[in-house]
Amino acid sequence: MTYRLYYWPTIQGRGEFVRLALEAVGAEYEDVGRGPEGPDFGAVSAVLWGEQPGPPPFAPPVLEAGGRLIAQTANILLYLGPRHGLAPEGELDRLWVHQLQLTIADWVVEIHDTHHPVGAQLYYEDQKPEAARRAEGFREHRLPKFLGYFERVLDDHVDGGWLAGGSMTYADLSLFQVVEGLRYAFPDAMGRAEYSAPRVTLLHERVRDLPRITAYLNSERRIPFNEDGIFRHYPELDA
Amino acid sequence: MTYRLYYWPTIQGRGEFVRLALEAVGAEYEDVGRGPEGPDFGAVSAVLWGEQPGPPPFAPPVLEAGGRLIAQTANILLYLGPRHGLAPEGELDRLWVHQLQLTIADWVVEIHDTHHPVGAQLYYEDQKPEAARRAEGFREHRLPKFLGYFERVLDDHVDGGWLAGGSMTYADLSLFQVVEGLRYAFPDAMGRAEYSAPRVTLLHERVRDLPRITAYLNSERRIPFNEDGIFRHYPELDA
Repeated sequence: MTYRLYYWPTIQGRGEFVRLALEAVGAEYEDVGRGPEGPDFGAVSAVLWGEQPGPPPFAPPVLEAGGRLIAQTANILLYLGPRHGLAPEGELDRLWVHQLQLTIADWVVEIHDTHHPVGAQLYYEDQKPEAARRAEGFREHRLPKFLGYFERVLDDHVDGGWLAGGSMTYADLSLFQVVEGLRYAFPDAMGRAEYSAPRVTLLHERVRDLPRITAYLNSERRIPFNEDGIFRHYPELDA
Repeated sequence: MTYRLYYWPTIQGRGEFVRLALEAVGAEYEDVGRGPEGPDFGAVSAVLWGEQPGPPPFAPPVLEAGGRLIAQTANILLYLGPRHGLAPEGELDRLWVHQLQLTIADWVVEIHDTHHPVGAQLYYEDQKPEAARRAEGFREHRLPKFLGYFERVLDDHVDGGWLAGGSMTYADLSLFQVVEGLRYAFPDAMGRAEYSAPRVTLLHERVRDLPRITAYLNSERRIPFNEDGIFRHYPELDA
């Protein structure tokens, strides 16, 4: 089965957590918004107001699997995980991985809101003073707190090196992406914070060095970070 | 089995989505933070740094079920749903309900951030101008958008009247709670917005009138809304 991913074609955004899972397992998928003739925003937004049967999703990313639409990043990963060896076997272990994914999702909202504290309907340029305040709190409080949490989770395992212990899951791929994005957006603050999170750094390396992930990151399928996405490098927010 | 719920004892907060599910099915649970001698914050925070085996949760609410800790509101509901008739049978239908729950969770973050746009580590009084701007965008854009979305989902079903069609799920209970909270926090804006969402209003009534929910809402177990929780009534934000 070929999946169809509906996501904005010019940013990594939340869609990237799904792309990484699909790429890590070598799944076949069509990135619908990235058509042969360039970005196709209409094809993505059509899924929100289209003619598919059944109730619509609220926002991308949306995965079409066998004719059925699944939305919400963590929910898509909940679906993909057991099908592609990216989730453990037992129900409670799967809930644990999902719990970690939802914690990452909370973190991603806070990262986004460093540059958009007043509202996503406004430009960054319309909320720079507010962003400066929010980013300061993020650098000083929230970044160390989240990073320290995942360090503690990794430290809790005697061995394994993955968030759920012995096997890699979609949560590991997502944590890789957050580390990668934070290094882009907040190079100074993240450089300092990672000193206290060596296990997270190591996990990032392990994911990066997976042959399929390495190939993906070096391909044109990986959209570069930019200032339209979640992880934006505004030097004034990384003071 | 008696569940143990770990959540802050003086607010409804995110714990309320779990409380409503437990109350709706008549499950036995101990609300750990609300001890016989009054609020016990220490008992709640202990679960984050306690001596339970296994890796810790990031934040409350946490549900202890048979000795195992489950955190993240939507994840707890994912666990409870199938066990108590609050989720449909099939996997894809369960994912749909979970998708709705995660959309509600996104909405709840935005509601919280109307009074805390700069950061949860600061008081509202330290971010009033920013809150005024954020709340304006919420009232004018986000509130109608989210409410309209759930109205559209309900409209999609020929009959049933619940978000997933014919049977009530935990997502219905959560939507009830958001409507209830928004009526408290933004009575004027919500009054206007609900004109365009009659099916959501009707769903709220159906949940409120469930005998167990009515009994719960009239009991002392239901903590009143207040200005320490997610839904806060600051008249200046409801202009």
